[in-house]
Amino acid sequence: METTEATQLHSVAPTASPEPVTRITEDQREALKSIGSATVSSQLSKMGIRDPHITGIGPLTSAEAIAGTALTLKFMPKREDLYRVDEYADPEVQLHRHVLYAVQAGDVVVVDGRANMSSGLFGEMMLTYLVGRGGAGLIVDGCIRDWPAVQDLGLPVWARGTTPNFHTQTDLMPFDYNSPIACGETTVIPGDAIVADGDGAVVVPASLVDKVIAVSSTHHDWEEFSRLKLREGADMRRYYPLSEAARPEYEAWARANGR
Amino acid sequence: METTEATQLHSVAPTASPEPVTRITEDQREALKSIGSATVSSQLSKMGIRDPHITGIGPLTSAEAIAGTALTLKFMPKREDLYRVDEYADPEVQLHRHVLYAVQAGDVVVVDGRANMSSGLFGEMMLTYLVGRGGAGLIVDGCIRDWPAVQDLGLPVWARGTTPNFHTQTDLMPFDYNSPIACGETTVIPGDAIVADGDGAVVVPASLVDKVIAVSSTHHDWEEFSRLKLREGADMRRYYPLSEAARPEYEAWARANGR
Amino acid sequence: METTEATQLHSVAPTASPEPVTRITEDQREALKSIGSATVSSQLSKMGIRDPHITGIGPLTSAEAIAGTALTLKFMPKREDLYRVDEYADPEVQLHRHVLYAVQAGDVVVVDGRANMSSGLFGEMMLTYLVGRGGAGLIVDGCIRDWPAVQDLGLPVWARGTTPNFHTQTDLMPFDYNSPIACGETTVIPGDAIVADGDGAVVVPASLVDKVIAVSSTHHDWEEFSRLKLREGADMRRYYPLSEAARPEYEAWARANGR
Amino acid sequence: METTEATQLHSVAPTASPEPVTRITEDQREALKSIGSATVSSQLSKMGIRDPHITGIGPLTSAEAIAGTALTLKFMPKREDLYRVDEYADPEVQLHRHVLYAVQAGDVVVVDGRANMSSGLFGEMMLTYLVGRGGAGLIVDGCIRDWPAVQDLGLPVWARGTTPNFHTQTDLMPFDYNSPIACGETTVIPGDAIVADGDGAVVVPASLVDKVIAVSSTHHDWEEFSRLKLREGADMRRYYPLSEAARPEYEAWARANGR
Amino acid sequence: METTEATQLHSVAPTASPEPVTRITEDQREALKSIGSATVSSQLSKMGIRDPHITGIGPLTSAEAIAGTALTLKFMPKREDLYRVDEYADPEVQLHRHVLYAVQAGDVVVVDGRANMSSGLFGEMMLTYLVGRGGAGLIVDGCIRDWPAVQDLGLPVWARGTTPNFHTQTDLMPFDYNSPIACGETTVIPGDAIVADGDGAVVVPASLVDKVIAVSSTHHDWEEFSRLKLREGADMRRYYPLSEAARPEYEAWARANGR
Amino acid sequence: METTEATQLHSVAPTASPEPVTRITEDQREALKSIGSATVSSQLSKMGIRDPHITGIGPLTSAEAIAGTALTLKFMPKREDLYRVDEYADPEVQLHRHVLYAVQAGDVVVVDGRANMSSGLFGEMMLTYLVGRGGAGLIVDGCIRDWPAVQDLGLPVWARGTTPNFHTQTDLMPFDYNSPIACGETTVIPGDAIVADGDGAVVVPASLVDKVIAVSSTHHDWEEFSRLKLREGADMRRYYPLSEAARPEYEAWARANGR
Repeated sequence: METTEATQLHSVAPTASPEPVTRITEDQREALKSIGSATVSSQLSKMGIRDPHITGIGPLTSAEAIAGTALTLKFMPKREDLYRVDEYADPEVQLHRHVLYAVQAGDVVVVDGRANMSSGLFGEMMLTYLVGRGGAGLIVDGCIRDWPAVQDLGLPVWARGTTPNFHTQTDLMPFDYNSPIACGETTVIPGDAIVADGDGAVVVPASLVDKVIAVSSTHHDWEEFSRLKLREGADMRRYYPLSEAARPEYEAWARANGR
Repeated sequence: METTEATQLHSVAPTASPEPVTRITEDQREALKSIGSATVSSQLSKMGIRDPHITGIGPLTSAEAIAGTALTLKFMPKREDLYRVDEYADPEVQLHRHVLYAVQAGDVVVVDGRANMSSGLFGEMMLTYLVGRGGAGLIVDGCIRDWPAVQDLGLPVWARGTTPNFHTQTDLMPFDYNSPIACGETTVIPGDAIVADGDGAVVVPASLVDKVIAVSSTHHDWEEFSRLKLREGADMRRYYPLSEAARPEYEAWARANGR
Repeated sequence: METTEATQLHSVAPTASPEPVTRITEDQREALKSIGSATVSSQLSKMGIRDPHITGIGPLTSAEAIAGTALTLKFMPKREDLYRVDEYADPEVQLHRHVLYAVQAGDVVVVDGRANMSSGLFGEMMLTYLVGRGGAGLIVDGCIRDWPAVQDLGLPVWARGTTPNFHTQTDLMPFDYNSPIACGETTVIPGDAIVADGDGAVVVPASLVDKVIAVSSTHHDWEEFSRLKLREGADMRRYYPLSEAARPEYEAWARANGR
Repeated sequence: METTEATQLHSVAPTASPEPVTRITEDQREALKSIGSATVSSQLSKMGIRDPHITGIGPLTSAEAIAGTALTLKFMPKREDLYRVDEYADPEVQLHRHVLYAVQAGDVVVVDGRANMSSGLFGEMMLTYLVGRGGAGLIVDGCIRDWPAVQDLGLPVWARGTTPNFHTQTDLMPFDYNSPIACGETTVIPGDAIVADGDGAVVVPASLVDKVIAVSSTHHDWEEFSRLKLREGADMRRYYPLSEAARPEYEAWARANGR
Repeated sequence: METTEATQLHSVAPTASPEPVTRITEDQREALKSIGSATVSSQLSKMGIRDPHITGIGPLTSAEAIAGTALTLKFMPKREDLYRVDEYADPEVQLHRHVLYAVQAGDVVVVDGRANMSSGLFGEMMLTYLVGRGGAGLIVDGCIRDWPAVQDLGLPVWARGTTPNFHTQTDLMPFDYNSPIACGETTVIPGDAIVADGDGAVVVPASLVDKVIAVSSTHHDWEEFSRLKLREGADMRRYYPLSEAARPEYEAWARANGR
Repeated sequence: METTEATQLHSVAPTASPEPVTRITEDQREALKSIGSATVSSQLSKMGIRDPHITGIGPLTSAEAIAGTALTLKFMPKREDLYRVDEYADPEVQLHRHVLYAVQAGDVVVVDGRANMSSGLFGEMMLTYLVGRGGAGLIVDGCIRDWPAVQDLGLPVWARGTTPNFHTQTDLMPFDYNSPIACGETTVIPGDAIVADGDGAVVVPASLVDKVIAVSSTHHDWEEFSRLKLREGADMRRYYPLSEAARPEYEAWARANGR
């Protein structure tokens, strides 16, 4: 089948790389990871970001917390004139490989897999390479494959599920990498930060990372005390949030426990 | 934004409590728990209750079995004239706190979260309080948040999933507690019994609790024997249900094993 | 309610058995199990089978790999004139029992449960019998019940979920066994092979079993070497697939490691 | 691709016809059509048939009322080893043609199209033939094609929608005709009666046709009178259903209007 | 089946009426109707109401525009202990009748039908009465029945569809009227205003009706002129919104055409 | 809220235009329109394009057939840091305007609206301009607004539905125009041809337009004859496709009727 030059742009390996991604620092990664997705989401909400949660995906693994810079990969509905089987002769035209070449330590690969349940967008060999490159995790609005082997890699994965099918076996084709994508009804720009844990994954706009870290580091000093009281069934009206009436009691506890 | 007195009724703390809930007894709780959700559902079906199963939710935890009295909490689609951000100044106007104040040992909090996947209806601190109050479990047609911390509380939870978002971050607002709700396409009246385990959660109308316990305590004495035979691959036509032909064999086994 | 002779055909026990099922051999079962669902799916794709994956179901258990011959069971929307409650007087009219009578060692029971989430199509006793008969596993496009007991049976199960409801409590009735069914948008003919593991379950047409085994046994000899290199973050362009440039390096490794 | 004899059974033209269908009479058709789907559904509900409505489909046309005997056609998920492109060389192997050969005046063709929105199960030429054969209507749990031409045929059609794709272009293949099918979550046996109008389509079990007609012909004589009163806004408590207090008023009206 | 006093509260006719509903005036109704749902929605958005649109329903009829005061009716999942068949002996226990008794000229009945497609919540006779009472329209998150007759009543209806089934035939029971409901993921309080037309239906909080009318009556005087220019394909940058550069041209047109 | 330069790239008006679109000719448009979507889809299927149908949308209007060159517009999930309310001060930053500036006679605007039912992506004024520019039609995987006015414009529209909400009122923001999009699970490249009618809309890759026209112009000369015979109920085996046995009959008819 003949294709025009214009459409070949998408079916062969990109000759020019996308613009380079500016990464968050290791300190920022560590800070975001310890804050966790729930507090990050609350703080972003206060800054006007209504819903930073990547909806519809959950941890496939034991949900170790991660934070890192988003690299992106976009799949589109397969069109046989744009994605041809014989292209496999040259693996370099497989676009989903290219996002992995760009991975640096601490990066999180985020994939728009169009919520498709019949396409395994990455398998064991490529995810082994992602681990080898120091990738922090994988976020897929769709499925991966080779799960029996992948679960032994120690790679944190958030996805919709697994399938034995390979990435272009049914409805999808890879189309772009490190361009803006939609993932779980959230827009992700390469260079945004990702925070993911047992609650799910959230996107932190690159421009807001420092602000989120700053406001999240102000903890309520009484939180540990209140948690203990609530666990005992004490009156929540008194202890959460800490009432003025209970403050002396908290302060006595803090002194007694060396806080 | 101005709101009328009528609508404020729903956005401020209730001045009058709902009618008190009549609870099932500890004996009834223990009996229902040991019967399990599958037998409870079958027996209710025979009594004319077509489908007591709360559809669409599963255990988030290891699915310890529970039974208890239902307290209810209802969320509704958020309307910004009825639920305003500055209300947070006074935590007492947060209706979802009020259902927790009412919890007694053995109660199960059942939440109509409208199957919403972007609202974390309870988080760690409030669920710590639920544990502190002796709550038996939590049933949510929707999501909770703070899962990395909540999973260590030992609270049995049945829900659709988790999200980092807080309860009113996106589409919902709490509206009523201890009023009739729909949860997983099942109507729950405060004071009904809940039985939940690895199969899911079922609602037992308060008026049918004794009847369900009475009919469920009549066990087939041959069940253990038949299970052993089926496990050996013996003819199911002979052993399940126990045929007349196999009854002497069963009785010999029962005598030999001191049943 | 009166029913015609024609419709009674479906509501009473079948007097004539379906045609006997031709099974795959134990060698074929072992071969398919070790190949795994991902490679099987790829190979079938190359043979023209677009999507052999049974979509929408996952492992309920720890996802031990299985392979075996498909026996089938079909549920249909319940019609009260065709399926009457008093039929329970005679358990032999329960069609879902009959597929179990036919089970031989290594068989996989595949059930079209119409993706229904309110019908528990098999429970503990019948699945105990399936284990006793040497069944290799259970594939259900729908739910099972008695999960607290079933998970201790050691039976590999792929399904949509669990429910406390029994099989005909709500919307379904068993209708046929060992006839062609649709399961997870895949057609299954009795006698086809099933391969299932952590990625999901796939159907191998009986006529293609030998061909799949033949082509799948040709492994890339360099795969273990490449995996090691990728795990170290070495250049994927060089090692996966193995480039001509890297072949001497691989061969040296192979000699050194006695491959 | 090679296929076994067993699977060819489904991919070639049937050599043996299914059992002949016993039809309802023209009088029965006329009676059911004048009763309408709403009353038929209510009456079946009283006889124990919970939900005879074919859910999910609506009239594509102006929804002229029809009633007739159901002939059935079943589609299944396409499997390329069972349905091969080169079969088109002989049109007689196209199973969906065969159900049309069987059509007699007053028949309704009912198709299990698996709710698929990408398969146009019949087009203009075959539906022209259905009209030519005197078919009363078409019920499709799926789509038809050639709508610009089909809408001029005057054939009443209930379906999910339209698509330009042909019947086996994407996911489906025809599999059986005049065998039991599920259509819109309702089981249809060849020979059942279908009643369809602006409310939708319902299935009347063949064995219940006479009973439905008998009970539906008893009309409330006061209904026309009550309708007039309700239209005037008169008290519904008095006139619907007709109260004893209003009966003399009704009787006077009936006399005055010659009823 | 025995039911407790508490649950009977919901299954018998209410002895006490809900609090009376305060209605919008005829002037307000006329103003809202002429503004239309699109402008109303935009204006509410500017006032902080994010999404007043009742999602998922459309006009069944030719979509004449309406505006009126909302009366509400709530359906809940059917529970056979709370809703018993023999209650039909007394039609007054049918709660859906009671909301109709309360209808005054210009009222709009809004029904939470839980998006159910198998329950026809109102039929011809009751909707005749709604017309007789001067009801302005009907909004149903679910289905109605008797459509062949209802479409001749001239009653504007927005709903999900039609079904031949009656209101409690399958999964629902009426539960409350003139209490707050959710309809199409929007909260409706009795006394709110409803505006519905070809775009759909929106809810205007009672407290915001005057404000919406006030801000919507300020029209751009140049809109008619711009529409004419756009229709001619003139530069949208110049004419919509009207640029300063084009204002003299507009003013000349206005003078020439007597505006 | 602060945003980086990088993210502003998407929230302000593009300074550089996308590459110009190469259009199909008027002759090609006329040819494709007369062929119709059903034949186009079949022919593309034979050329290896599995499913060119834009799934999930239908004609809002009377479904006049159209064909034209695709211009594209892409919406993405709204992120408040990327799309700010005060941007409305300058209408030129509204990206959905820009695709209209590019419209020439015979163009079809195709919009990826992410299947969203709460965003009205175009309204009356902009669609008036589309008509003024000579646009052939509008294809939206989502909703439009102002339907009461739009339906009078005479613009053929295929969409999921209507809503009173404006384009960025809830979840979406415009992001790009004349770049590749996914619409109804089909990839559309600017410059592709669109054919739409009562069956729905299909995408013809620009490179295949001539080929589709060429193969579709070969009509079966006997089709009109066969249609007449089928309409009379004559044997479909004889007349469709025309059998050799019936060819003399056809030829006699053709001579008699001057074909």
